[in-house]
Amino acid sequence: MASLAVLPPERLKKPLAVPSRLLFGPGPSNCPPRILEAGAKPVIGHMHPEIFEIMDDIKSGIQYMFQTNNAVTLAVSGTGHTAMECAIFNSVEPGDSVVTAVNGIWGERAADMAERIGAKVNTIVAAPGRFLSNAEIEQVLAKHRPALFFLAHGESSTGVLHPLDGIGQLCHKYDCLFLVDSVASIGGAPLFMDQQEIDILYTGSQKVLNAPPGTAPISFSERACKKIFDRKTKPVSFFLDLKWLANYWGCDDKPSRVYHHTGPVTAFYSLRESLAVLAEEGLEKSWERHQDVAEYFHAGLENMGLKLFVKEKKARLPTVTTVVAPQGYDWKEITSFIMKTHNIEISGGLGPSVGLVLRVGLMGCNSSKSKVDMVLAALKDALRNCHENKL
Amino acid sequence: MASLAVLPPERLKKPLAVPSRLLFGPGPSNCPPRILEAGAKPVIGHMHPEIFEIMDDIKSGIQYMFQTNNAVTLAVSGTGHTAMECAIFNSVEPGDSVVTAVNGIWGERAADMAERIGAKVNTIVAAPGRFLSNAEIEQVLAKHRPALFFLAHGESSTGVLHPLDGIGQLCHKYDCLFLVDSVASIGGAPLFMDQQEIDILYTGSQKVLNAPPGTAPISFSERACKKIFDRKTKPVSFFLDLKWLANYWGCDDKPSRVYHHTGPVTAFYSLRESLAVLAEEGLEKSWERHQDVAEYFHAGLENMGLKLFVKEKKARLPTVTTVVAPQGYDWKEITSFIMKTHNIEISGGLGPSVGLVLRVGLMGCNSSKSKVDMVLAALKDALRNCHENKL
Repeated sequence: MASLAVLPPERLKKPLAVPSRLLFGPGPSNCPPRILEAGAKPVIGHMHPEIFEIMDDIKSGIQYMFQTNNAVTLAVSGTGHTAMECAIFNSVEPGDSVVTAVNGIWGERAADMAERIGAKVNTIVAAPGRFLSNAEIEQVLAKHRPALFFLAHGESSTGVLHPLDGIGQLCHKYDCLFLVDSVASIGGAPLFMDQQEIDILYTGSQKVLNAPPGTAPISFSERACKKIFDRKTKPVSFFLDLKWLANYWGCDDKPSRVYHHTGPVTAFYSLRESLAVLAEEGLEKSWERHQDVAEYFHAGLENMGLKLFVKEKKARLPTVTTVVAPQGYDWKEITSFIMKTHNIEISGGLGPSVGLVLRVGLMGCNSSKSKVDMVLAALKDALRNCHENKL
Repeated sequence: MASLAVLPPERLKKPLAVPSRLLFGPGPSNCPPRILEAGAKPVIGHMHPEIFEIMDDIKSGIQYMFQTNNAVTLAVSGTGHTAMECAIFNSVEPGDSVVTAVNGIWGERAADMAERIGAKVNTIVAAPGRFLSNAEIEQVLAKHRPALFFLAHGESSTGVLHPLDGIGQLCHKYDCLFLVDSVASIGGAPLFMDQQEIDILYTGSQKVLNAPPGTAPISFSERACKKIFDRKTKPVSFFLDLKWLANYWGCDDKPSRVYHHTGPVTAFYSLRESLAVLAEEGLEKSWERHQDVAEYFHAGLENMGLKLFVKEKKARLPTVTTVVAPQGYDWKEITSFIMKTHNIEISGGLGPSVGLVLRVGLMGCNSSKSKVDMVLAALKDALRNCHENKL
């Protein structure tokens, strides 16, 4: 036998150190002890009857959160990006026309993903902080006749809550599937998957749900399933192939579940518990709370003389607020000061909003007036203490 | 606003119930409290300096476990299947020739994945329980001139530990990358990534490492990186694109890390801790312990009159043992009896070994003589009590 050429690393001898932080960035959010403790319960097999029960709990919880009766509703074993690829890989075949609405980073990433698998991709662009009208969307559907139209409901990079009413109906008029990213919005703003005729909807576990990142709820309408299950080519990914996933999650007509992959069982426990917390509060109460807290926060920001990046009130995402980067300051100095002095994470822009905004996320258990007061106090302190940028 | 059409599910009102089990199947394995507790530490941001420290710990730990100095070493945010797709998606371009060694289910799955992305795939098949000679492998390399050759080191479906010596050198003689699946074997049997000239190696967190499923260590040689970073087409997956992943894990030359996806930070804590446990014991001790315990187990099985499925001693996987399904019994009755009566999971076959074997996994903290004694006692009890199959 050969001898060891690489020795045990010294750095692993130190104990694991994890700080406690107030996570008021665009995500991940803080997780309540109940949800963290659920994730520390013993591992069981990914094919045991008890995990199937927990997966059925998750399925019901997602149906409630999404307001859908779709049979094919499950959680992908990955993050929001995995769910995004699950949606696109399954619903798009090479050569299909795809249109993505770009009002921040997510539409760009969806376009990149669809291009990688050979779709013909067009985008329709809204200026950062703005949204698209249904007339603009109909125009692009009529022009490109896409098989799939992508829209981010909560655009966390710009702080826009995109209106959804009527878009599903428009998509179906043009025989197109409607794919919605609700990673930053679900649970914090009204969304009705079935009534709004959304064909594929996904989110992540680490925003309003307050579970650790690592699982991603997703649901497919019958119309989406018909296209997916009738497709001529296999999806590029075995891991994300909906035929396999639907069977593992007991969403198909088959009498038994077949081993597909080893589900992240402890992440399922946390996700299940986060959905239980949401169901206990009730969706409508959660939507109202996020809206009330956001309005309280926005008023506080304006009282400080700060400006909101999204002008139109109804298009302000209640979960992630974008604040115009204060003139005369270096935004990085502000976020660093707040982290260092107040142990609070807030963040700068992302993609098209880099340099333009500060982003503050108050999601799930962090959506409360007392947390708003903490952020406002930290911001005031930062503006007092950070050197003005003399450039 | 529309009203709620789907009400909070009754089933989420019940408390989360998770049984404690002895997981002696082929995985996941039991997780020690230290590792579960690590995963319940508070969530921090996926771009915080502290998580980069933990990711660097993980990287060092994987380099040690894999015995490699590869710079591009990281953990994929997913399970073993995700790592398998990460390896294949990045290293294979459409039209490339790929050969997979099929000595159980994993070679079949690798072939399926490569076919989905447009590779020309050939397989070389060993009978279940057998392995391939280097001469057979050279023949197929010379014939098909593949860009990638896949082999499972630990074939958990058949219980075979495939010899590795000399195969990397053969692959390089024919200008082919050598991809090895070590999900079931790493940490439990000797493997030297650099010395054995393995170009891509991956594993899962839930076997010998005793962490929950959900992260998957992977490493790429310089030769693999050259092919991957020089490829003409983009990999089909943005989420698994090595250029992005290598940057997120600080494995490239760029001065800073760019947001790619939200890493499953709490799963990283558990993985980090599991690598620390392995480093504390030491690889060589862990290999010896798994080998000693396996031999003790195999002797006990033979003393009971049971037969081992893998005839050649040196090809017996020390982590997952395949026992010939006892004649005159229904194997499902045996596994159900042992679960019901002894709270122990053992499993039946998978893929080509279905109906032929019972599979017992003793991995990481479960690899001990006292656990062997528990399995042997449970098996004896089952053989006494299960009705003989009179068919």
